Amino acid sequence: MAQVALGTKEKKVVDVHTHMYPPEYVRILESRTTIPLVRSFPGAPDPRLILLQAEVPLLDSAAAAAESAQDSAAAPAIPGRPLTRHYASLEQKLHFMDTHGIDISVLSLANPWLDFVDAASAGDVAQSINAEFAHMCSQHPGRLYFFAALPLTAPLATVLASIKHVQALPRCRGVILGTSGLGQGLDNPALLPVFAAVAAARLPVFLHPHYGLPNDVWGPRAAEYGHVLPLALGFPMETTIAVTRMFLAGVFDAVPALRMLLAHSGGTLPFLAGRIESCVLHDGHLLREGRLGPTRRTLWDVLSTQIYLDAVVYSPVGLRAAVDATGADRLMFGTDHPFFPPLTSDEQGPWESVSLNAAAVSAALADAADADAVMGANAVRVLRLYEGDEVDEVAA
Amino acid sequence: MAQVALGTKEKKVVDVHTHMYPPEYVRILESRTTIPLVRSFPGAPDPRLILLQAEVPLLDSAAAAAESAQDSAAAPAIPGRPLTRHYASLEQKLHFMDTHGIDISVLSLANPWLDFVDAASAGDVAQSINAEFAHMCSQHPGRLYFFAALPLTAPLATVLASIKHVQALPRCRGVILGTSGLGQGLDNPALLPVFAAVAAARLPVFLHPHYGLPNDVWGPRAAEYGHVLPLALGFPMETTIAVTRMFLAGVFDAVPALRMLLAHSGGTLPFLAGRIESCVLHDGHLLREGRLGPTRRTLWDVLSTQIYLDAVVYSPVGLRAAVDATGADRLMFGTDHPFFPPLTSDEQGPWESVSLNAAAVSAALADAADADAVMGANAVRVLRLYEGDEVDEVAA
Repeated sequence: MAQVALGTKEKKVVDVHTHMYPPEYVRILESRTTIPLVRSFPGAPDPRLILLQAEVPLLDSAAAAAESAQDSAAAPAIPGRPLTRHYASLEQKLHFMDTHGIDISVLSLANPWLDFVDAASAGDVAQSINAEFAHMCSQHPGRLYFFAALPLTAPLATVLASIKHVQALPRCRGVILGTSGLGQGLDNPALLPVFAAVAAARLPVFLHPHYGLPNDVWGPRAAEYGHVLPLALGFPMETTIAVTRMFLAGVFDAVPALRMLLAHSGGTLPFLAGRIESCVLHDGHLLREGRLGPTRRTLWDVLSTQIYLDAVVYSPVGLRAAVDATGADRLMFGTDHPFFPPLTSDEQGPWESVSLNAAAVSAALADAADADAVMGANAVRVLRLYEGDEVDEVAA
Repeated sequence: MAQVALGTKEKKVVDVHTHMYPPEYVRILESRTTIPLVRSFPGAPDPRLILLQAEVPLLDSAAAAAESAQDSAAAPAIPGRPLTRHYASLEQKLHFMDTHGIDISVLSLANPWLDFVDAASAGDVAQSINAEFAHMCSQHPGRLYFFAALPLTAPLATVLASIKHVQALPRCRGVILGTSGLGQGLDNPALLPVFAAVAAARLPVFLHPHYGLPNDVWGPRAAEYGHVLPLALGFPMETTIAVTRMFLAGVFDAVPALRMLLAHSGGTLPFLAGRIESCVLHDGHLLREGRLGPTRRTLWDVLSTQIYLDAVVYSPVGLRAAVDATGADRLMFGTDHPFFPPLTSDEQGPWESVSLNAAAVSAALADAADADAVMGANAVRVLRLYEGDEVDEVAA
C-alpha cells in the first residue's frame, strides 16, 4: 500500500497540520476591533486570541464590563484563548517537534488566514506572510515546509499571480484554504480558475474550517459548554458541507488534477459518505437533471483519488473510518499545534492532544507499514518533503 | 456479545426505523397553509408532502407561478415529494416488509410528529394518533410494534399523562422524539421530568431529526442539488448536535435509566466522539467549572451504556464506526421506509435504500452472530418484541 519515497530515510514522523501566526500576522490582529482580533484583558497573563463568531457574546460582555467601572465581584469570563508564545515562535515550534519526535512539520497560517484583509492590500500581505514562512523554513532545511496563504479577497488576477509566486517559493508544498472561497463557498464557479491554477502548479489544497455553523444551532446554553460545540462540531461539519457542495457542483470532475487534504479527517465525510451517496441516488431532482448517468463519479471515487485526510480525529473509531473511506496510503498524521495545549500539565512537556492522535494510529492500523505510512511516509511522498530537487534560495 | 431473547425464534429481521402518517395525520397536514403541509399541484400525480424549511423557497415560487396565469413555458419545479399510498397504508407497509423479508416492524409517526400542534389540542391529537398506531399493530400481532408520539407542545402535566397513557398501550415500545423538545432543545432542564418519566416507564426514546440546519449553510446553489444537502448532512448533524448538547448538559447522568435509540447511526456521533472528548478535555471553561473531575463519565461511556444506534448509515464504513463506538449488541437494522423509494424501478419491488443498509451489515460484521444481532436479535431483546407477556386489549 504505502510507498516509501526514494532517497529519504524511512519512518519519518511528519506533522501536516500545524499552525503559526507569524509576528506580522499577530500585529494585524492586534490592530483590529472586530473578530478576528488579539486583545489584552486585565487579569489575563497573555493577550487573548478571539477568532470565532461564537466568542462574540463573551467579547461584548467583557467590553461592557470594562466600561462600567463598578464591577469587581462578578467579572465576566475572559473571551478567546491565551495567545502564548507557541503561536508565533519558531523556537517553540521546534521544541514542540522535538518533544514529540516529529521530524518534519508542514507549517500553515492558522485560520482565518487572509479572509478578512481588504482587497487592495491582500496581495501584498499574502506575499509578505508567505515570505515569512519561506524564511522560517529556510532556517531549518529538511525539517520545515509550508502551505502558503492566498489573497482570496483580492481580484482574481492577483490571486492567480500569487499562486505563481508561491509555486516558486522554496519549501512551499501547497496552499491552505478556508471554506468561504470568494465569499460564496467553494462550489462557486468563479473559483474554478483558482482550483485549476493550484492543480496546474501541483499545489495540493489543505482545506481547513473556521466559520463553523450559525450560533443559533448551539442553543441558549452554549456558553456553559465553553468552546466545545463550535470546535468539536462546528468545525468538522463546516468542512463536510464545503466538500459536499464541491462534489455536488462537479468541481472534482471539472478539475481532475485537484488534490485536497482535508482537516480533521474530512470533518465527518468518511462517516456520511454512504448517506450522501444514497441521498444522491434517491434524489428526483438530480435524476430529472440527467445527473445520475452511468459515467457519474461517486463520492467514494473522489475520496480515493482526489482527497487526502489528516489523521486528526482523536479516536481509533474515527481513524478506522477515515482509512476505510480513502485508504491507508491517503492519511497523514497531524497535531493541530498550537491549539489544544494541555490544561493541567506543563505546555513545554508532552501534549495529550498529540498522544491521542498518535495512539489512534497505532490502535487503528494493525499493519505496521500502514501505521508508518500514516505517521509520515504518505506525507513525504505526496507533498515531496525532501530537499534534493530544489535550490535553497532563501538565506537564513 | 449478542444475546438471543428467550422464547423467540432466532434470526428475525426487525426494522426499527420505519414511519407512517396515519390517515388522521394526513388530514391535519392537508388542512395547513404553512410547512409541514400536504398540497396538490397541477401536473403532479400524487399530492405533495412538504416538510423541510429548505423546501420553502420552492413552495413560494410554485405558489407565485400559480397566481400569475401567464406561465406556461417555464413551470417551476414542484416542491416536496410525492405523498404516495406508502405513507398511510398499512397494506403497503406489510407488502414492503414481505418484499424485504422483514419479520417485525416498529412503526413510528414520521417527522415533524406533533411539534406544530397547538397546546390546547396536542394532548387529544396524541391520544388519537397513538390509538391509531396501537390499532394497526393489533391487526398483525407479532409483526408490528410502535414508538408513540408525545404532545410536547402541551403543558407538562399533559405530557406526563400521555407517557402514562402510552406505557399502557399494547405494543408501544418507546417514544419517538425530535430535537426541539419544548422548543429550546434537549438540553433544556425543563425537559428533565419528561426524560425521567419515559425512563421510569421503560420507554426508550427514538431520537429522530427534522429541522436540519439553517438554510444559509447550504449556500446560494443549494436548490441545484435537490434535497441532498438538508437530508444527507442537515439531518445527521442535527442529531449529533442535539445529543452532544444533552451530554454536555449532564442529561445522561441526571437520568441514568434513560435509553436512546439514535436515528441514522447517531448522525455523526461515532466519528466525532473522539473529537468531542478531546475538546472537552482541552476546554479551559469546563476545567474552571470543575467539570473535568475523575468521576466524569465520557461520551464513550454514555455511548456504550445509554445509547443504541439504528443501522441506517448506507455504508460499511459508517456501520463499522457505529459498531466500534457502541458495540455490535447496540445496533439495530432499519429502512427509513417510506422515504427514499427507488426512482428508476417499481416501488412495489425491492428498494435499493434497504439493500444498501442490509449489505452494509453483512460487509461490516464478519461474525454471523453479530450480523444477526444487528438485523433483528438486538431489537427483539432491547425493545421486548414479543407477545407473550401482555394481553391484547385492542380488538381488530
